[in-house]
Amino acid sequence: MASAIEIDAMRRALQLARRGPRGLNPQVGAILLSPGGEVLAEGYHRGAGTPHAEVDALSQVTADAARGATAVVTLEPCNHTGRTGPCAVALIEAGVARVVYALDDPTDAAAGGADRLRGAGVVVESGVEADAAEEVIHDWVALQRTGRPHVTVKWAQSLDGRAAADDGTSQWITGAVARRDVHARRAIADAIVAGTGTIHADDPALTARAEDGSLLPAQPIPVVIGSTETAPDAAVRRHPHEPLFYPTHDLPAVLADLAGRGVQRVFVEGGPTLASAFIRAGLADELLVYLAPVLLGGSRLALGDLGVPSIANARRLAVASVEILGDDMLLVARPAAAPATGPAAAAPATRSAAAAPATRADRPAVDGSTALAPASTGPEPARATAPQHRGDV
Amino acid sequence: MASAIEIDAMRRALQLARRGPRGLNPQVGAILLSPGGEVLAEGYHRGAGTPHAEVDALSQVTADAARGATAVVTLEPCNHTGRTGPCAVALIEAGVARVVYALDDPTDAAAGGADRLRGAGVVVESGVEADAAEEVIHDWVALQRTGRPHVTVKWAQSLDGRAAADDGTSQWITGAVARRDVHARRAIADAIVAGTGTIHADDPALTARAEDGSLLPAQPIPVVIGSTETAPDAAVRRHPHEPLFYPTHDLPAVLADLAGRGVQRVFVEGGPTLASAFIRAGLADELLVYLAPVLLGGSRLALGDLGVPSIANARRLAVASVEILGDDMLLVARPAAAPATGPAAAAPATRSAAAAPATRADRPAVDGSTALAPASTGPEPARATAPQHRGDV
Repeated sequence: MASAIEIDAMRRALQLARRGPRGLNPQVGAILLSPGGEVLAEGYHRGAGTPHAEVDALSQVTADAARGATAVVTLEPCNHTGRTGPCAVALIEAGVARVVYALDDPTDAAAGGADRLRGAGVVVESGVEADAAEEVIHDWVALQRTGRPHVTVKWAQSLDGRAAADDGTSQWITGAVARRDVHARRAIADAIVAGTGTIHADDPALTARAEDGSLLPAQPIPVVIGSTETAPDAAVRRHPHEPLFYPTHDLPAVLADLAGRGVQRVFVEGGPTLASAFIRAGLADELLVYLAPVLLGGSRLALGDLGVPSIANARRLAVASVEILGDDMLLVARPAAAPATGPAAAAPATRSAAAAPATRADRPAVDGSTALAPASTGPEPARATAPQHRGDV
Repeated sequence: MASAIEIDAMRRALQLARRGPRGLNPQVGAILLSPGGEVLAEGYHRGAGTPHAEVDALSQVTADAARGATAVVTLEPCNHTGRTGPCAVALIEAGVARVVYALDDPTDAAAGGADRLRGAGVVVESGVEADAAEEVIHDWVALQRTGRPHVTVKWAQSLDGRAAADDGTSQWITGAVARRDVHARRAIADAIVAGTGTIHADDPALTARAEDGSLLPAQPIPVVIGSTETAPDAAVRRHPHEPLFYPTHDLPAVLADLAGRGVQRVFVEGGPTLASAFIRAGLADELLVYLAPVLLGGSRLALGDLGVPSIANARRLAVASVEILGDDMLLVARPAAAPATGPAAAAPATRSAAAAPATRADRPAVDGSTALAPASTGPEPARATAPQHRGDV
């Protein structure tokens, strides 16, 4: 049983964890408690290539200060030698007597820390504040399981399923409240994805903005998928993050590459063709459908072909919520059971052959083995090298 | 001021009114009260060609019994000579001293009864329980104003606006709860309308049914619009009411003819082409959109061309309610303001040149002047005579 002091320390460690960046590695916090329950040190992980949270905390105390101490950590101490040595060993060597952690490490490479600690005589307790810890690194954990980022596909449509009127005009199908909601959701994604068709037609900035047009503090990386060239003066090129261009239709490969860059959560907002492609490929984890109380008719459909030949193959959704946003409605849904039959039916997301998913083992963000690398500096296709412009994040 | 006894009598008169049939004439109830407040007689109108409610009540008392009495009537006593004489005159001649009524008669032909009563020295009070009375004859009053029945356009669609999968299968997009709701709403309509395309493709019965397939007590008249012949063995031909066939695309003329038959409320449930045509023509008063949590993609759209060239011409809706029906949602909406510009924009419903709307003046249901008459007995077009198969209703 964890003590009340240890539970409090875990809550504090979770706050610290959130200070770290979302990226290749999970956000982790750690607290060192003296045998008497006093806080000796606090630490958290600041991103791939920097010390893990436990080591960060240990580094703040003198050599003998941690002897007999309790380490409270939000994730199982790793058992892996990457850029840093295994945290389990560091804790053992420091003389820590007890380790309390929240979540087991889900990666093959890093797991086993608890066993190693126990083998060295350290008392280990797990599962403390596990739900809260899962919330902090939910996307990272999911990425370890699926090998790709979480994908939200968003579109706005008229009640009758059109994205625009026949002449292409669509500003604004939905109202200000719905648009504000979209921007808030963009801001919590790591990347925002559009197709080249939409970039060409609408010239979107792909930024997360406040109502006055100013940029929100957090900005998703802009990602452009497709073979049409993006104009040199396109708005997306003025994005605070340099855009990633993927001149391909291989969505799993794009997602795998994004995963390799530490992208855990993707917001697909790039037009009917791209939205349909993600859904058709079974790569949409969450759907956000902004429904405007408007009828448009005509040919500009919000979704195109979804590979559904017959009603038995309908892509059934589980509606998580229905929200009223001004005059509009937002449906949040996720795919329900996969269709019974049918070609290209919603396959569960599996690790793509091309995917080299990030582990916690300090895999460098730039990795020569990446199967697909985007062109980041111009409209020309570039597959040879993978540019790095987010540092370690 | 109406007395408490008179208000009670009005409520009872409204109950009586509902016993009469929906049809060319409004449903009206009447109660005769003695000067002491005792009920002398109750009456209601049983449909065109039968006595009005006031006369029905008067007929139940001896010649002098109504002298000095109060007549409580749900609609202003008429001032019109049709198959029966003006009720205002009948009340005056019976020696009624006071008349309390709920609603003014909205028809030019029949109005003026209150003035005539006052001119004869009768004390007249109006507006008693007016809201409740309006509820009873709402559709009839609207028909007097618009010259056509109230039109509800209903469709079921996938979230992305499809009525069926690519191979035409659509059973069932929506679930059992939604279908039950549809049947209940069919039962409160006077007519149910489908296009010949849907009749041909789906062979619908156009009946209102309980979950076990049995017929509900009230059945709308089946109406088939379009030029394709309906097969001799089509299910619609086994409907409890003989179907009306209108081999035309002139929707205002169809509605005018239905109005002339006493149809006050029409339920359009006849496929994408017909639904789109009603909306495009500005003839949809209410929209019922059953939204299934399903994506279908493909080409089978729930609505087609609505005559909306640009977003500024979008047919904006006022959503009256959003209801969860099992896994599905029902949106009830009506057209909001008409679009600012655009061809064939939602014109307010006006009396069609072809329409000969019903008045309260006992217009016969069969009328040689009807511009358009349906074929009721076979697939062949028939415009010469208007069949009568609902009696006076």
